[in-house]
Amino acid sequence: MQVGAVKELFNVLTPSDAFARLRPLLSTRPDVERVPIEAALGRVLAEDLHSPGDLPSFARSTMDGFAVRATDTFGASEGLPAYLDVVGEVLMGQTPERGPRSGQAYRIATGGMVPPGADAVLMVEHTQEVDRATIEVLRSVAPGEHVIQVGEDVRRGEPLLRGGHVLRSQDIGGLVALGITVVAVARRLTVGIISGGDEVVPPTAVPSGGQVRDINSYTLSALVERGGHTARRYGIVPDVYERLEAAARAALDEVDVLILSAGSSVSTRDMTADVIASLGEPGVLVHGVSLKPGKPTILAVAKNKPVFGLPGNPVSCMVTFDLFVAPALYLMSGCPERPPRDGVPARLTRNVASASGREDYFQVRLERRGDALWAEPVFGKSNLIYTLVKSDGMVRIELDQGGLSEGDWVQVLAF
Amino acid sequence: MQVGAVKELFNVLTPSDAFARLRPLLSTRPDVERVPIEAALGRVLAEDLHSPGDLPSFARSTMDGFAVRATDTFGASEGLPAYLDVVGEVLMGQTPERGPRSGQAYRIATGGMVPPGADAVLMVEHTQEVDRATIEVLRSVAPGEHVIQVGEDVRRGEPLLRGGHVLRSQDIGGLVALGITVVAVARRLTVGIISGGDEVVPPTAVPSGGQVRDINSYTLSALVERGGHTARRYGIVPDVYERLEAAARAALDEVDVLILSAGSSVSTRDMTADVIASLGEPGVLVHGVSLKPGKPTILAVAKNKPVFGLPGNPVSCMVTFDLFVAPALYLMSGCPERPPRDGVPARLTRNVASASGREDYFQVRLERRGDALWAEPVFGKSNLIYTLVKSDGMVRIELDQGGLSEGDWVQVLAF
Repeated sequence: MQVGAVKELFNVLTPSDAFARLRPLLSTRPDVERVPIEAALGRVLAEDLHSPGDLPSFARSTMDGFAVRATDTFGASEGLPAYLDVVGEVLMGQTPERGPRSGQAYRIATGGMVPPGADAVLMVEHTQEVDRATIEVLRSVAPGEHVIQVGEDVRRGEPLLRGGHVLRSQDIGGLVALGITVVAVARRLTVGIISGGDEVVPPTAVPSGGQVRDINSYTLSALVERGGHTARRYGIVPDVYERLEAAARAALDEVDVLILSAGSSVSTRDMTADVIASLGEPGVLVHGVSLKPGKPTILAVAKNKPVFGLPGNPVSCMVTFDLFVAPALYLMSGCPERPPRDGVPARLTRNVASASGREDYFQVRLERRGDALWAEPVFGKSNLIYTLVKSDGMVRIELDQGGLSEGDWVQVLAF
Repeated sequence: MQVGAVKELFNVLTPSDAFARLRPLLSTRPDVERVPIEAALGRVLAEDLHSPGDLPSFARSTMDGFAVRATDTFGASEGLPAYLDVVGEVLMGQTPERGPRSGQAYRIATGGMVPPGADAVLMVEHTQEVDRATIEVLRSVAPGEHVIQVGEDVRRGEPLLRGGHVLRSQDIGGLVALGITVVAVARRLTVGIISGGDEVVPPTAVPSGGQVRDINSYTLSALVERGGHTARRYGIVPDVYERLEAAARAALDEVDVLILSAGSSVSTRDMTADVIASLGEPGVLVHGVSLKPGKPTILAVAKNKPVFGLPGNPVSCMVTFDLFVAPALYLMSGCPERPPRDGVPARLTRNVASASGREDYFQVRLERRGDALWAEPVFGKSNLIYTLVKSDGMVRIELDQGGLSEGDWVQVLAF
């Protein structure tokens, strides 16, 4: 047994214990930039926002009908209607200067400003026009009915969104509603990616015997960009300690986060760990995680920046990015908790075993059978990128779950 | 009761029946452009791809160890080891010219090319080094063990991905693995957005009494862009038939899809429907859907382009975008079926009623209680954008589900 393998085996932590070693060392105060609201979708808000005003700023009708004094309608019914004089109309976007007195009504459309004197809106469906100037009221309305009050949506000074929130479509809408058209957001992080391996050539090269094209730096770049950050690929570095160290040292100065996609052999993994350890204090925090695929993961910090040594196998590489790099990027952007992992619920087509004490991920293909979605496991070695391409997502088996049974509901995580 | 209201009530269709009227009229053959693979994430593939070669192109080791002839290891055990002479080493990225004969082994690392003559790899953990040139074999290996065969990941000519597939991170990796560095994808669609309403002013304006800032064209733009398309805002048009018609006609010439975010009153909705009907054949297909919020939705086609009249209320606007516009954009991009809607499973904190025969959406806030996520309904009028801002997502109540009970598992759809 080689020394490197021993080193790994004795250090395996659960994925959450592994991340817990990294987490307190991450800088969670991102650089901030101000962007126009149109460019803020998906960005992490870097300030607490409070409402600069009341929304709506005036009482609005939520129905088409008549602005009235509610007391004028009390007791009205189809059998015994009340009668009101229609003495005016609220124009959209206008401030009505006058409003109904007792016995009077103003025509009003949805969104119109409730005029002075009125305290409710009577739906047009609950009225009958007698002539242009008179309506029958067929139902009573309560004070405030069909009216949105000043500040009912949000009040001046009320907290709107907290720093660390990832801005969604409706947040953009909510902010422009209050005239907030520029926001402070966390600067995108730059993630450097170095591919290692004497056998690895760029995608445009024609590999000769024994060579393979670089997969991981492209997959990783896509994952970084899907997360809203900037990927910088530093190319392929041969398995020579000095070359890898020089490349890592140079890259670390230019990025916020560094990923080394190491080869898969124990010796290159150990070399990667040694290179990472040389980059600065505190160095390697975790070397080996009780996770399949993804055991030989390295988590480290140097120069206050996280450095990840991810396994060379494409499937392992994606799983460990998702478990360790993605949450680190959220935290470093000031987002205290990663949003819950989305997924699609489906039922498992067969039993899947798992070793206790290890978190397992397996790929599945979704199949619609009638109304239900079923998850069909796609088994394959983690060296095979196409098991992942042919899958719709992954299913996690928790640390001590032991396994899953046919028919179990699972959450298929998009990958 | 007004004529417009009657028109709506008699035409209400279920959301799926409504979309079924639009679906066959959508052009599902998108314009195509070729993009470098680095820019293809999230784009819809516009061609069927087949593998130009075998992956891997040579038999690769999946373990660190020794390339051997499997028959040499048969019967080997810790008690009765076999002995092999280590006569060479496979270098990463190199084609080994020679390989082991009977009784011999070659050192090999994970990813190395299995040399001629060898048909299996013996894990280093199952050997004991006697001296530099001799190992004890402590376990037998079967032919093919710890070897990825030529084409085991994907074979030359095998279908890789179909046109219509939305490219994910692993697809990018799978394609570069085969040297495919440029792909044909559907051109992004341009979606025009017109806001209507005499009361609506731009976000930068200070609304006077009775005026409100434009929310929906910003929310809609964000939704369009989140879907990978291009939004073009045509500003705010007053509630004057000729003005709205001129704006819609001009915009329709420049875009692939047109959205009119109409006011909320019956009269402006009817005017919007009339304007849409004037744009060309076949015109309005659906006016009114059994959906809450979102009933007054208009689906139409003119000049072979879909035209949507979405309700003015911000919540209705988002729900109807998601139900009708988003799937139309997928179809028009050549994606035959929208990917299953992601969501987060959670348990409902209280009963929620629903009228039968109607699809209901309500907003929820997610709360973590111990290990479980709970969905707490956030009730509010659909006129209020902040009910949506303060929510983590929405829950759908199916057409004839009647309602949901406290403790039910629901899928919280990200909005």
